[in-house]
Amino acid sequence: MIYTNGKKILNACGLEAVYTSCEYLLRYITGFVAENGFAVVDENGTTLYTDKRYIEAAEKIVQGTDVTAVLYKQDDSLKRLAQYKSVGVSFDQTSHSEYVTFEKAGVKLENIDGVFSNVMSVKEAWEREKIARACEIAEDAFLKILPEIKEGITESELAALLEYNMKILGASGTSFDTIVAFGAHASVPHYETGRTKLRFGDEILIDFGCKVDGYCSDITRTFLFGDDHKHEEFKKAYAAVLTAHNLVKERLQTGMTGVQADAIARDYLKDQGYGELFTHSLGHGIGLNIHEFPSVSPKGQNVLKDGMVFSDEPGVYAAGEFGIRIEDTVTLENGRVKSFMSKTDRNLIIL
Amino acid sequence: MIYTNGKKILNACGLEAVYTSCEYLLRYITGFVAENGFAVVDENGTTLYTDKRYIEAAEKIVQGTDVTAVLYKQDDSLKRLAQYKSVGVSFDQTSHSEYVTFEKAGVKLENIDGVFSNVMSVKEAWEREKIARACEIAEDAFLKILPEIKEGITESELAALLEYNMKILGASGTSFDTIVAFGAHASVPHYETGRTKLRFGDEILIDFGCKVDGYCSDITRTFLFGDDHKHEEFKKAYAAVLTAHNLVKERLQTGMTGVQADAIARDYLKDQGYGELFTHSLGHGIGLNIHEFPSVSPKGQNVLKDGMVFSDEPGVYAAGEFGIRIEDTVTLENGRVKSFMSKTDRNLIIL
Repeated sequence: MIYTNGKKILNACGLEAVYTSCEYLLRYITGFVAENGFAVVDENGTTLYTDKRYIEAAEKIVQGTDVTAVLYKQDDSLKRLAQYKSVGVSFDQTSHSEYVTFEKAGVKLENIDGVFSNVMSVKEAWEREKIARACEIAEDAFLKILPEIKEGITESELAALLEYNMKILGASGTSFDTIVAFGAHASVPHYETGRTKLRFGDEILIDFGCKVDGYCSDITRTFLFGDDHKHEEFKKAYAAVLTAHNLVKERLQTGMTGVQADAIARDYLKDQGYGELFTHSLGHGIGLNIHEFPSVSPKGQNVLKDGMVFSDEPGVYAAGEFGIRIEDTVTLENGRVKSFMSKTDRNLIIL
Repeated sequence: MIYTNGKKILNACGLEAVYTSCEYLLRYITGFVAENGFAVVDENGTTLYTDKRYIEAAEKIVQGTDVTAVLYKQDDSLKRLAQYKSVGVSFDQTSHSEYVTFEKAGVKLENIDGVFSNVMSVKEAWEREKIARACEIAEDAFLKILPEIKEGITESELAALLEYNMKILGASGTSFDTIVAFGAHASVPHYETGRTKLRFGDEILIDFGCKVDGYCSDITRTFLFGDDHKHEEFKKAYAAVLTAHNLVKERLQTGMTGVQADAIARDYLKDQGYGELFTHSLGHGIGLNIHEFPSVSPKGQNVLKDGMVFSDEPGVYAAGEFGIRIEDTVTLENGRVKSFMSKTDRNLIIL
């Protein structure tokens, strides 16, 4: 794999050079991650600077790419950057302290947050492969824990088990704090996993994901732990959410805006009487960040393109009663939606 | 527990108000954590702003404290902050984007990074209790995995098992990426846990920690998986590192500088012929961050005070051969060192 990402950012912003010390942008541009490092891109290529603790690892990672790894010396960045007419950086990912240091040294910085978001939102094939692997691991881990779900297990025990299995299967870690919600807790979309014990008849909502080489997966499954025949409203709503989820996969096309994509699910859920209960966006971009560009929401004016990766996650939340969310990480390929999830059932599972 | 942290920062900086939207500073000032929130402290108290997703949880957390939780409305922060003559913020933890937004709205910001570092370095009793709990969980988890260490287990499997047990025991997560290094890998102080399998006679170095309510623990243990009688140099060095570690506990006193503390271990290791092989600092501050003020290193001019929490972690690294680090999280109490670790052996374990 050749890291051309630095060049893509440089070309898109049209400036003399691009600089970053932000961890995930550094990974994007060089493939390398360290506590201490930064990268400079100009027409001659990409240079990765790091200290003696990481230089050996850096040299290994950039082998065969257009990136050169260099041992950092005091003020290297300032001296080098002061030579350019202007340098593109992410103002969102630059601390004001760092900005002041550059300003004092006479470095002219320009904000290219929009360029980073746009360019990074369309993934290369190798990036989508890493996301696919992160999705596969998440699904495999989910399938491994299903037989372990017993009465009395706590939400946090189940979360720990899921995270353990994702790591064993090759993930470097989670892509966000795992949400495991039993019973009515599922009606809180951003529920914080607690110590509640599982009881017969409870619904279970699990929203989780992992990272592979920095790239994230995101998946939600909602199901029942036994059927106590008190879930009529839940089952009706589940069917509606599942249809909304599937309609997006069928009808969403490259070239639509985030608003139009969101409306596919939202209009259907409104028709079914759940409009008020679908309280969040249909989806969000997924990559080196778990939430990134594009927006797939009633406010997302951006156009969805082939190669973008985002979530398809309609939900219905009846406060204090139940919550349902069905989420896949998906991409656009040849104009249509392709899901990265293929192993786990979206039909209602009753354990 | 009463959150007086906001007031401490306000008094120390002497400005009209203090503002933060940074996650860990927000937790420090209000006890609350959310994807979206900020706090303002002035002479009337501390106000925590968050959105409708988190407001209920916020109200619960601030009950009985001097913090008021308020539902955030568009531009609340700008309008309110523009009224003050000057507002203290952390420039390190403020993005340049956020700074520009404030500047345009006429808010006068002053950098109080030093105030945050200094005030936060001296922990309240309730903060030290949380760190103590995070340390206890780390030690308990370590003791639980010892019987699971078998020939053929990989570094990352062992790391996953350790992390699973810390979560089961009540940690919210790890305080940093767990380092498990087998054999000569231990000679790399910042080794990245890999897929290497354990063999009889290998040394094992594990550097790990977890979080309780945001507060971190940090511990390293080095031991042998069976004794193949090829570890003479290792054992000699181990004894020296252990003595250095213990000398710090005996001799370090409140009022010393970081340099003086570091020298206790460094001078001894030099005397034993390991000066060149002790390649990092003796320790670093530990709190809501795994690395924070004070510095306990040859560059640490800061004075160590009662209530500070930091690591005591001398190490010896023979490149390509072995690495030894023995680390406790400790505090200063009544002028002397008190370790938070009491359950795990620092004498050389041979499994």
